[in-house]
Parts: sequence; C-alpha cells; structure tokens
Amino acid sequence: MSLLVVGSVAIDNVETPVERRDDLLGGSATHFSYAASFFTPVRLVGVVGDDFPAEHVELLESRNVSTKGLERKAGGRTFRWTGRYLDNMNDRETLDVQLNVFGEFDPVVPEEHRDARYVFLANGVPAVQAKVLSQALDRKIVVADTMDLWINEHRKDLDALIGELDGLVLNDSEAKLLTGQQNLVSAGHAVLDMGPRFVIVKKGEHGAMFIGRDLVGAIEVFTLPAFPTENVVDPTGAGDSFAGGMMGYLAEQDAVDPATLKTAMAYGTVVASFNVEGFGLHRMTEVTREQIDERLEAYKRMLAF
Amino acid sequence: MSLLVVGSVAIDNVETPVERRDDLLGGSATHFSYAASFFTPVRLVGVVGDDFPAEHVELLESRNVSTKGLERKAGGRTFRWTGRYLDNMNDRETLDVQLNVFGEFDPVVPEEHRDARYVFLANGVPAVQAKVLSQALDRKIVVADTMDLWINEHRKDLDALIGELDGLVLNDSEAKLLTGQQNLVSAGHAVLDMGPRFVIVKKGEHGAMFIGRDLVGAIEVFTLPAFPTENVVDPTGAGDSFAGGMMGYLAEQDAVDPATLKTAMAYGTVVASFNVEGFGLHRMTEVTREQIDERLEAYKRMLAF
Repeated sequence: MSLLVVGSVAIDNVETPVERRDDLLGGSATHFSYAASFFTPVRLVGVVGDDFPAEHVELLESRNVSTKGLERKAGGRTFRWTGRYLDNMNDRETLDVQLNVFGEFDPVVPEEHRDARYVFLANGVPAVQAKVLSQALDRKIVVADTMDLWINEHRKDLDALIGELDGLVLNDSEAKLLTGQQNLVSAGHAVLDMGPRFVIVKKGEHGAMFIGRDLVGAIEVFTLPAFPTENVVDPTGAGDSFAGGMMGYLAEQDAVDPATLKTAMAYGTVVASFNVEGFGLHRMTEVTREQIDERLEAYKRMLAF
Repeated sequence: MSLLVVGSVAIDNVETPVERRDDLLGGSATHFSYAASFFTPVRLVGVVGDDFPAEHVELLESRNVSTKGLERKAGGRTFRWTGRYLDNMNDRETLDVQLNVFGEFDPVVPEEHRDARYVFLANGVPAVQAKVLSQALDRKIVVADTMDLWINEHRKDLDALIGELDGLVLNDSEAKLLTGQQNLVSAGHAVLDMGPRFVIVKKGEHGAMFIGRDLVGAIEVFTLPAFPTENVVDPTGAGDSFAGGMMGYLAEQDAVDPATLKTAMAYGTVVASFNVEGFGLHRMTEVTREQIDERLEAYKRMLAF
C-alpha cells in the first residue's frame, strides 16, 4: 500500500568517541524511507540543493523510494548537520547546523502521489507538516514526529496539527514537555486527549511505549524494549528508522488494528537496531528482509517466557 | 526451597511531590522478604534496635518470613532513612540517614538456617555480605546487590565477593561505574569476566537487562521492560522487591536454568510494579498471589506480538 513521507534530506557529519565520518547521507525522511523500503514502496517529499550527489538519489531509487517529490533547488545547498555523540552513545550535541534549502522548505506532493494511504510527517515545522496534510486527502492514517523546538516555539500550530493526526511519535522528554506530565503513561493519556488515537513515546536505548485507544475505545498501554546490542556505531536516524519500519509494515499489511500496530512497532525496533550498527545508512545497505525477519524472531523469543 | 536474605531492616520517612509518610517499615531485606514470601518461606538476617515495633515483626512472621535471624540490639536504635522523590518519581535525594545499629551489623545466620539453598545478599558493605557466605555453605545459588558507595570505596572487598557470586544485581549507572563500560551489554560481559554466571542490570522505570551464560557457556542477553503504570506512589524498595520476586520464584521452582531465570525476572518485574503502588509495603499487604499471576499474564500478553 502507498506510503508517503515528508521530512529532511541531509548531509551529516557524525563524530563518535571512536571516529568521525563526513558527508553521510542523512535526514529524517531519508532514514525513514530506507527503513520503510524493506516493506513497501515509498514516496519521498523533501528538498535538496544542487550539491546533492546523484549517487544518493540512485541509492534511494534502487530501493523503490520514489524521489519524484524530492525538489532540487538550483543554486541552493543541501541541509547539513554536524553532531557529536558522547561516551554513552545516547546523548549528543549539535556542533553545526546549516538549514540551507530546508529552511524555506515548501513541500509539494506530486499529483500522482497524492492518493497515498499511509502518510508520515517526519520532524519539521508544524505549519510545513500541515501543508502536506492538505495534499494527501485520500489518507487512511497519518502519523507525525515532532521535537522540543516546535513544542516551545510553534505551540499553536503544533496543537492544530496534532488534532489532525491518527498517531504521534515523539521522545520521552518531549512527551513530558508537551503535556506537563512526568509519568509517561499519564503523558500518553494527555496526548490522546489532544486528538490522536495513539502515541508512541520513544525512549532511545530503552525502547518505546505505546498508549492508544483500541477499537472499542479502551486505552491500551504497552512497552517494548530496544533490541539489546553492543554494536552501537552511530545512533543517528534510529528514531526515524524505527518509524520507517513501523509505517512500512503497516502499509505492507494495509492494516492499523492494535495487533498489527504492535507487530509494526516490533519491526520498527528491529530495523532501528540495524540502523545504529553503522554510520549513516551504511549498515542498512547490507541488510536483507530475511535478516530483519530473523532478528524479529529472536526479539520475539527474547520477550517470551 | 529455603531462601535466605541478609540486608537492612529500616524505618523510612518518604516524601513525594504529593505527600509525606513517616515511620514506614522499610529496608532492603524487608522489601525483598515480603516480595519473596508470595512464593516461598523466607529466612531474614538483619538487625534492629529495641525501638523496632513488634507489629512489624508480626507482619513479617505472618507472611512466613522467619525473623529468627533478626537481631534486636538492646539499647540500640533501628536504621532510619528519610528521602524525597523528585517530580519524575525516579530520582530521589536522601534527606537524612541514621545507620544506628546497622552501622555495626555483624550478621549471624541461625544454626537451623545455614542449610539455605537460595541466598540473597541485599545491598550492604561487601565484607559484611561476605560474612554470610561463610555461614551458608550448602547454598545452590547466591545473588547479591551492590551500590556506588562500595564500588568507589570498598572495591577490593567487592571484587572478592563478586568472584564468589552466581549472580549480581545492580542498577545501570552502577554497572557502568563498576566496569567502566558505557554500553550495558558490554558492562554485562565485563561483570561475567569477574566471576558471576549472570548479571541483572536494573533500569528503574525502563525495566531490567539480563546478561548471562547459558548451560553450554554461550552468552544470552535479554531486556524486559517495566510493567507500565500511572500509579507510582512510592518507588522505595522497587529494586529489592524485584529481587525478592525473582529469588522467591527460583526458590519455589528450585531451578536456575535460563528459562526459569527469565520467568523469575518477569515475576520480579510484576511484584515490583505492585510495590511502587503504595507507600512502604502498604500496597503489598493488599496483594494476593492470584493478582500477581493475573498481572504476569497481562505482562506476558503485553510482550507477545
């Protein structure tokens, strides 16, 4: 089933306690798309400058990620982010950010992509995210990510957007900031009161919590841990690949019932665990759907007792 | 099967953002014993002053927790701890601590308790924990908890103790401190190199990670999340009730194979989730084994997809 994502496409420089890599293909929509492409074709909406290497476009197209909605701004430069991970490989600091063409991103969904049934709004300015909603009116489900910057500085737009969503994905500190609730279950309830049918609170190395209404309106809460790994090379894009694996599986199954949502979260968890095993998308380009399914089985066994 | 625990028995004053309760029955051995008593009789070794209320002893005895090894020091006062939880209900600060008789605790295991097969050394001075080992020579398995204070200031004694253990339980920051490893899986491996067959890293609201060798020496790693709850009233004793539920189940089953260990951790998780629902042991005194088994089933369903 058709899956549309809008978000950033970037060139990243990443520093870890062990090494530094420059000019990595990055961005929320990129990590999302690659992760989702194991499950379903993807329609990417984003913007880059004319410095954006053709090989990156080819990589995405080779994965059945349509870049028809990836605008190339003549004379513009691609969004660039440089970050450094601390020793714990969870906390990071942004060393440099150049929004470039992403700073005036005005997303246009190509005509033939507007009938998308599954829509994901990766982290971005809420008003820009909202623009995509009005161009994807055939959607069955729309899920969005957000961050502290928009919660603090674009609250009105964000509230309006959240009212339109089926699902919201955000991290634990952002869930607390958005709702003023310190307990994540309570924070989840507060988000449901804002409109969405479910919220997924990402907890980084600790996994993710789901709070949602089931088909009869009862609230269901569950937590799935991260897939434990020693081999964390670069956490960049973990949250986006989680969302990509999840939305990709939902689109593949063309279902959004509670059982499918839970399996989708498990797939997202497993895909994210591969994403962090290499810089940028490096590990992802080596992985097969069979390996994802094998790790999903290992994850399922891990949680059975 | 016989289960012996040595540790603190205390009177706690607990402040939360919502309210304050004084003169609660607390202490690591107390929370452990009560939790374990749902599964098996418990032999408690500890020390209190003559200010320790008889009703507390009666409560423990009513749960089949033998207090024969609970020394009453004439003229002494019981260990007292006063703490305050911050808004997130995870971080806390110690407002006052009076070790009193626990400061010179010299544990003596009663003669008829020395044949215990399951032994838990709750958090305490490593040299004092070691004294119990030499009085429980028929043990099948010994597991200990520890903390940053002993890692920093009694390292030699602690290393010697860890070399004698089958299992070590400690929290995530302590695991990192003990091993110098920032990744918890790596930290777990480093603990196994120190002697134990398994280590359980407690992650508070995020659950617990197991790193251990299976019967053929292969390393198994798994994470179990906490049971999600909105109703966190007082987290004091969560870790000890987790250990109590876990060791109690192992003793009940009289088995320590990997599958039983995982189910035991699940029971520990569920028992701890009840423990935090009231001040001190208040919620625990209302709970039945049936309710624990019901929640275990809900937890099992939560983790199935």
